Amino acid sequence: MYFYRLMDRIKNITIVGTGNVGSHLAKSFSVSKIKVNGIFSRNSENAQSLANTFKTDVIERLDSIKKTDLVLICVPDDVIIEVIKQLPKSLPVAYTSGSVKLDELPKRDRLGVFYPLQTFSKKRNLYISNVPFLIESDNNEFGERLFQLAEQISSKVLYADSNDRYQLHIAAVMVNNFTNHIYDLADEHVKSNDLDFDLLIPLIKETVDKLNTLSPFEAQTGPAKRGDLNVINKHINSLKGETKDIYSLLSESILRKFGNK
Amino acid sequence: MYFYRLMDRIKNITIVGTGNVGSHLAKSFSVSKIKVNGIFSRNSENAQSLANTFKTDVIERLDSIKKTDLVLICVPDDVIIEVIKQLPKSLPVAYTSGSVKLDELPKRDRLGVFYPLQTFSKKRNLYISNVPFLIESDNNEFGERLFQLAEQISSKVLYADSNDRYQLHIAAVMVNNFTNHIYDLADEHVKSNDLDFDLLIPLIKETVDKLNTLSPFEAQTGPAKRGDLNVINKHINSLKGETKDIYSLLSESILRKFGNK
Repeated sequence: MYFYRLMDRIKNITIVGTGNVGSHLAKSFSVSKIKVNGIFSRNSENAQSLANTFKTDVIERLDSIKKTDLVLICVPDDVIIEVIKQLPKSLPVAYTSGSVKLDELPKRDRLGVFYPLQTFSKKRNLYISNVPFLIESDNNEFGERLFQLAEQISSKVLYADSNDRYQLHIAAVMVNNFTNHIYDLADEHVKSNDLDFDLLIPLIKETVDKLNTLSPFEAQTGPAKRGDLNVINKHINSLKGETKDIYSLLSESILRKFGNK
Repeated sequence: MYFYRLMDRIKNITIVGTGNVGSHLAKSFSVSKIKVNGIFSRNSENAQSLANTFKTDVIERLDSIKKTDLVLICVPDDVIIEVIKQLPKSLPVAYTSGSVKLDELPKRDRLGVFYPLQTFSKKRNLYISNVPFLIESDNNEFGERLFQLAEQISSKVLYADSNDRYQLHIAAVMVNNFTNHIYDLADEHVKSNDLDFDLLIPLIKETVDKLNTLSPFEAQTGPAKRGDLNVINKHINSLKGETKDIYSLLSESILRKFGNK
């Protein structure tokens, strides 16, 4: 039985898409001695560069892929269907999207989800070992194989259905995309006043470290939590444009949450 | 000269206000062997409790304080003036607010600012040694003394005028109060779907760790950065109330920033 499972493991992977997710996963597999045996990208330069890095071939046409343990699709959501339709029916396929539900895609024998709940930037190295991977497939055996694959690069692997994954993706957009954009607006604000964003780093780190011991609700501080409308209005009157709108909306939301409005 | 400075150091402090800031600073001074020689609070129970902790006296009336190297005011912004007016003119005074400018307060011989750029919660222990302290006073000698005092508890002390401190406070509200509130809304969102907020922690930590090597602008990822309007609209249609409004406004702001709108 154990031997059977070993035989069945995904040992080589063809990667479609060379964006942030594709290139990070290629690297993680490679580090874990799982062979990347082909790279496809609409951008042939990216494909060649990644293929060189992992000493593998560029795939010219999706319908020409012959044999691989897995085709892993790492492309924008609205291109996934198009890619799947071009892949030979016999090939096992997984995709890495948070918000595309399994039943939105054309049925296949072996189709699954391999979703890393993380933010990936090409310029940034990342320890993937604590990234949660959410796995889903209608084919239990194939789902197990994807689960095993994820376990080879991460210690946090779990099954999640399309709706759970979707709701987590929404939350991920909030806690990553939105908070990072707020850092960006704060960076603009301090720079426009000839001040150094680095002064805010200890505060930014403590904001996150607090979550080790407090819930976000318990951790809340600041003028809106205290109901200090003088400070809030003073700040709003000093701001303009989007930053002003965002300051107002978020302050109102905190005021309401803490019964100050 | 050095001896003169040593003689001049602030060696004991009377603290007015027993909220998050007052109680954290009292503890930090105490750890650094700077005596807390009196506690005043409108809430006499809090005052007694903090006075017990630091083996000091409760101050019953502000106008009765006789001798102290510093009165440190840690009260809400709109109460600072009222407190200062009651303090005997001879006493050196500093306050801990980000947004109250020095020239908004009644003039005194020794009046200054001792502002920690950090989020403090009573239930949370904190290493104060890397918290930036912003110091200001019209009296240079007194400003130096406040600077020295801050250096005894933190390695990041700087002079900043009222406007710089004010602009940094606005940015601090953004990077702490607002991002924490977004964590809170995400927490609500995942809980209402019977999912575990802890799954988002690696993503939250990486969002901050990215700032070690990338600017927030470079670190941005997600549907709005990519201009993926399908995903954005799908998410917006799944949300309601404030979370929906905040999702929309922040997505629009990111779309614009990256030229997708």
